[in-house]
Amino acid sequence: MKVIITKDYATMSELTAGIVLEKMMESKRVNLSLTAGSTPEGMYRILLDKLSKIEMDTSLINYYNFDEVPLENERYGLTMSTLNKDFYEPAKIAKENIHELNLENYQTFSRKIIQDGGLDLIVMGVGADGHFCGNMPGTTGFDKDIYSCELVPGSDGFQLVEKITGKTPGPETVTFGPKTVLGAKQLVLIANGEAKAKIIKQVLEGPVTEEVPSSILTTHPNITVILDQEAAQYLNKDLLK
Amino acid sequence: MKVIITKDYATMSELTAGIVLEKMMESKRVNLSLTAGSTPEGMYRILLDKLSKIEMDTSLINYYNFDEVPLENERYGLTMSTLNKDFYEPAKIAKENIHELNLENYQTFSRKIIQDGGLDLIVMGVGADGHFCGNMPGTTGFDKDIYSCELVPGSDGFQLVEKITGKTPGPETVTFGPKTVLGAKQLVLIANGEAKAKIIKQVLEGPVTEEVPSSILTTHPNITVILDQEAAQYLNKDLLK
Amino acid sequence: MKVIITKDYATMSELTAGIVLEKMMESKRVNLSLTAGSTPEGMYRILLDKLSKIEMDTSLINYYNFDEVPLENERYGLTMSTLNKDFYEPAKIAKENIHELNLENYQTFSRKIIQDGGLDLIVMGVGADGHFCGNMPGTTGFDKDIYSCELVPGSDGFQLVEKITGKTPGPETVTFGPKTVLGAKQLVLIANGEAKAKIIKQVLEGPVTEEVPSSILTTHPNITVILDQEAAQYLNKDLLK
Amino acid sequence: MKVIITKDYATMSELTAGIVLEKMMESKRVNLSLTAGSTPEGMYRILLDKLSKIEMDTSLINYYNFDEVPLENERYGLTMSTLNKDFYEPAKIAKENIHELNLENYQTFSRKIIQDGGLDLIVMGVGADGHFCGNMPGTTGFDKDIYSCELVPGSDGFQLVEKITGKTPGPETVTFGPKTVLGAKQLVLIANGEAKAKIIKQVLEGPVTEEVPSSILTTHPNITVILDQEAAQYLNKDLLK
Repeated sequence: MKVIITKDYATMSELTAGIVLEKMMESKRVNLSLTAGSTPEGMYRILLDKLSKIEMDTSLINYYNFDEVPLENERYGLTMSTLNKDFYEPAKIAKENIHELNLENYQTFSRKIIQDGGLDLIVMGVGADGHFCGNMPGTTGFDKDIYSCELVPGSDGFQLVEKITGKTPGPETVTFGPKTVLGAKQLVLIANGEAKAKIIKQVLEGPVTEEVPSSILTTHPNITVILDQEAAQYLNKDLLK
Repeated sequence: MKVIITKDYATMSELTAGIVLEKMMESKRVNLSLTAGSTPEGMYRILLDKLSKIEMDTSLINYYNFDEVPLENERYGLTMSTLNKDFYEPAKIAKENIHELNLENYQTFSRKIIQDGGLDLIVMGVGADGHFCGNMPGTTGFDKDIYSCELVPGSDGFQLVEKITGKTPGPETVTFGPKTVLGAKQLVLIANGEAKAKIIKQVLEGPVTEEVPSSILTTHPNITVILDQEAAQYLNKDLLK
Repeated sequence: MKVIITKDYATMSELTAGIVLEKMMESKRVNLSLTAGSTPEGMYRILLDKLSKIEMDTSLINYYNFDEVPLENERYGLTMSTLNKDFYEPAKIAKENIHELNLENYQTFSRKIIQDGGLDLIVMGVGADGHFCGNMPGTTGFDKDIYSCELVPGSDGFQLVEKITGKTPGPETVTFGPKTVLGAKQLVLIANGEAKAKIIKQVLEGPVTEEVPSSILTTHPNITVILDQEAAQYLNKDLLK
Repeated sequence: MKVIITKDYATMSELTAGIVLEKMMESKRVNLSLTAGSTPEGMYRILLDKLSKIEMDTSLINYYNFDEVPLENERYGLTMSTLNKDFYEPAKIAKENIHELNLENYQTFSRKIIQDGGLDLIVMGVGADGHFCGNMPGTTGFDKDIYSCELVPGSDGFQLVEKITGKTPGPETVTFGPKTVLGAKQLVLIANGEAKAKIIKQVLEGPVTEEVPSSILTTHPNITVILDQEAAQYLNKDLLK
């Protein structure tokens, strides 16, 4: 594990965008899995700016969504609609390069990823409760591949999705499990702000336990954690050595 | 994870030797970590036979021992003396290519491995109690790097070492932790015989838990498990898909 | 470049089979390109023997033929019919895992390989004239990707194919070019016997020139050359260091 | 080969800096070889800015100079003094992480690189005559590893070094050869401006020939070429597909 502490959110976003661009510019097929949400918004703005200034073959760059919360009466769920808005549409990504995860395909999606050559990079955030992708405390098994989860109406998660989208979430969500994520060649975990400081300390310095799902990520052979100073404030600086 | 079920111990040993030889023959520095014990004896016999029939540059092939049980009044502990006898001496491995782990160097050994470019391959066995390297049920933390452990006089482990060596083990052992092992580029787990059948089922099909230390290995992005039919007898054959 | 000199053809074949099996046993999709001809016959016999003694998932193991000489009035050309006989049929390789190169698809085959994740390993022989795949002295450009070549009736190559197959070759052949081959992650070059000794010295010790097409292979970052003693007899032993 | 055409020099520099930073942030030892000269000045400015805004462990990041022109009566030659000024000193790189190439060590430097785990990335420019590193038309052999070259007093190269440094070059230079460069895991070639436009077309679209030394780089399995619009102006846009 390599930990990077950046001066601010802008620097965190620039470094993360640089990692994604590095993969995009390699001379081979590249399979990326990029998080939706508020943490990566800065990263997407930078990616869009850079991509607007270059010409290159983008037909070998593939995107695999790592979770989804379906929304009632909507074609796209929370993840897909957010990624469409923040990146896929403004970057004009070709439909055939976007691999949506959903309740229809999640049981074969893992096989598809392997057949497509495996994931080169996953960029993830971490929840204040320690979740990553849709792996929540209480529902996470470290041995799980892609799986679906009940979303109980009225639960915290349910209410959060309602608030973000103004729409009603469906009764079931889907997510890459720990095994799917750990199978990627490279992981990047990003976090910023005071609100993430406590969980970041637990994830990076505490025991590896299903109660703090993201803690398992620290066992991956090639993981980089990029934090701003606020999120890193409680860390033992020995982690930088 | 890829599971291979072989007809017999000889085939398991040949396939494992072939994997080790493949690394040895690559055109680059290679860092190997190979298990001592009875399971790999067949593999070492094949390696010695093959190496006796070829000429090649071996100066870039490095060996890093992954655990040690010091023996009182002996220069070498259980692991190093076993590897010397079964492989290093008959294969005439140069001293500078053998990296012994011991109580003097274990706190800097992990750093040394990283500086040396990381481990390309670890070949391990699994204990009937689910241990790998020196990670035992009850003492294993998935977040641990290389660490030392007390070896209580009179304990099962203590008596086993006494029986194997005819010597008195020291009070402290040392081992790669889960994090060290999971940091390698490739893992191979081998097991043969009826006596390993139950634990193999637990390791490969059960939950990932510190009570069955080897269960964490199933989360590695590039692990191959090579079994004979006896060790594989309780497995759900879906694992082969 | 790593050079391995083996005691005899049997050892060369065993080591090469071991390399191929190592790829087959990795926990990921693997894309292989294996030579047809007489040099690899020993390797295929060993592969078939080993594969008959193991159970594993083979659905992720893919084969990409690297050249072809079509035969008049025949469904399969020289390469495909040889590979069918020596390996694909006796090993019961599924049709969907065999990627035949031919005059119909060669202009899109390179793109297909890249989309499929690139080649993990190419195992090749070398001709007494220095050719590799279908890259002959006089027709080889180091900048070429997959290309077709005229096969002049009555030429040495034409007569050779007639003699081997008892059939009439078509007027055009197809082959991976140097750029396609050098794009693979790992290369293995095999040669045995007195008849290859002179060209092996030129390929490994001489200048990199289109007149000795295989000489370009020595610039690949991960190439292993496996020879028997006869093929290696003129080599400067410094190559082993 | 992947070709990227950027809007301007600033974008070329940002993308290249992003690639270098990506390597620096990976969780492993990384061995870099970065060009000196005027082309990368923008890249170094960006690297210095970014590095000033982050805290991380830099002890695993190593730098290997790829050529040198010794200067009479000076401790450091042209390459080392330029890199010191533009990057090593302002970035406060630790002495032990800088691996200077010179006339004293060049015969063992290649071995050292391999023992250190190989080069992860080389960032190079291209000369208007097609040279890369110190591989000039007329002195380049594609089979060469690190080698020394005479620098004839009064020659163009000699006069250029005199002009840049205001000092007298020594009679001998040293450089990574084609084989050393092609042995790296990843290559990045950068070029900007009208003055490079013609040679870029030759390098990327012409034959692979020792008369245009950089042409050999196009055969590497993982090379990215980053150009500004002026340097790319004569290119066939099919290269972007």
